[in-house]
Amino acid sequence: MERRPRVGIVGLGLIGGSVGLGLRQGFAEAVVGSDRSSEVADEALLRGCVDSVAPWPEGFEGCDLVVLAAPPSAIPALMEQAEALSPGTVVTDVASVKASVAKQIPERLAPSFVPGHPLAGTEGSGPGEAKADMFRGSTWVLCPDERQRPDALSLVERMVRALGASPVQMDPASHDRHVALVSHLPHVLAAALLMQSATLDHPEVAGGSWRDLTRVGGSSPELWSDIMLSNRDAMLAVLNSTRETMEDFTAALEAGDREGLRERFARASEVKRRGW
Amino acid sequence: MERRPRVGIVGLGLIGGSVGLGLRQGFAEAVVGSDRSSEVADEALLRGCVDSVAPWPEGFEGCDLVVLAAPPSAIPALMEQAEALSPGTVVTDVASVKASVAKQIPERLAPSFVPGHPLAGTEGSGPGEAKADMFRGSTWVLCPDERQRPDALSLVERMVRALGASPVQMDPASHDRHVALVSHLPHVLAAALLMQSATLDHPEVAGGSWRDLTRVGGSSPELWSDIMLSNRDAMLAVLNSTRETMEDFTAALEAGDREGLRERFARASEVKRRGW
Repeated sequence: MERRPRVGIVGLGLIGGSVGLGLRQGFAEAVVGSDRSSEVADEALLRGCVDSVAPWPEGFEGCDLVVLAAPPSAIPALMEQAEALSPGTVVTDVASVKASVAKQIPERLAPSFVPGHPLAGTEGSGPGEAKADMFRGSTWVLCPDERQRPDALSLVERMVRALGASPVQMDPASHDRHVALVSHLPHVLAAALLMQSATLDHPEVAGGSWRDLTRVGGSSPELWSDIMLSNRDAMLAVLNSTRETMEDFTAALEAGDREGLRERFARASEVKRRGW
Repeated sequence: MERRPRVGIVGLGLIGGSVGLGLRQGFAEAVVGSDRSSEVADEALLRGCVDSVAPWPEGFEGCDLVVLAAPPSAIPALMEQAEALSPGTVVTDVASVKASVAKQIPERLAPSFVPGHPLAGTEGSGPGEAKADMFRGSTWVLCPDERQRPDALSLVERMVRALGASPVQMDPASHDRHVALVSHLPHVLAAALLMQSATLDHPEVAGGSWRDLTRVGGSSPELWSDIMLSNRDAMLAVLNSTRETMEDFTAALEAGDREGLRERFARASEVKRRGW
């Protein structure tokens, strides 16, 4: 494809809006957008996230690439609607859980659909807080399988690089295990710590490490309940393994096993030195 | 006391050195120091943490205030040696665990000894990294009981304020429960997360919340084993309560209880808004 791609974005919130702003800086010939809220669509148009607004999926007929920028629970319905697009149109999504998405790809869409997840974002929401450089320097996971046309994956990778992110290929189950540990579990731990502090009366004692651990504890209860449930199996596995690791620490402490405790902290320290 | 106090510091590492630097900026008439390592003592003198170095306890005879700036396990021996000081000398310590210290105060020392814990510090160590403003804006817990002379507590409080910190009175058991949750537990959680990540192969997936939670995971294994063991009872209680809270989250997730999960996250969020 020599000419620049025409891009469509379904869902013009923080992520969809930022994708639009970023792709309009040279990658896309034009960006058309849609949002189930006409207010959000108007705001995105006003902010320059899209060149135009059109009804989904009828108005996306001429697109080379369509980005489904909606939460996990909305993706199955959008994938079914995407079957109405011309077969040449490449489609990707940005949902933070991938195994459930991969399992539900309609047969007709499979050759052109590449599941994705940009590991970026801020505490904000809506196109008003979108930024063209939202994804710069971050990792963007793609979960292709054996069903896609080769050009579908390469077009999505070019889009990711145009946004300044690095594409990393993972299978959907591995992706979900990773985000369960590195992103979803931290929210449960933050909540667990905050709930315990309710029984104490001196918040002025809390220092840097407490602030670090509980920073994400003020996030949206609705969103995080939804994410936990969407990634239920991987979350249960990681909650279970965290419980086991803590019980092991507790046993060493109960036994007064100084060398055992030292060895456990040293092992963790070694993992951190390896880049975690 | 109209004249400025003469201060002695036993242990000239990061904390003792910073106390010396800070108190020499106006509060103290003079600061004498001691360290079991003569190299450390020389470095502290060279950096201006103390006016002079003297043998402990003989060389601290004329002090109004002595600060025991040593780890928890070294405090009992130092308290016994402090009995050799003149009865007017006020003594305090900076150990990060307080119930065990309070229990071991010798009868003769009790009227003049005020247990303390500055909630400050950096990743560094030694007088080379000491800073005069180390404690500025931080909380300094004091654990007086009914045995002290009134002037002992007020002198230690004046010292704390001279260093820019805010004195907060707590009983030793409450202090130990607080630091178990807000400072010691975060180190165990960071280690538990890092140990689990050893089974995964894409560290580039880890983002801001992972970095926040595991930041303290590279701390000294020796020091943190020692701190866990010194605060064993409070640590076991908080580990147990963390396990229960996580089991409760896990049960709600297993049951697919969306409203229950939302309610738990909302409760945590509410605690955070109250200043935790």
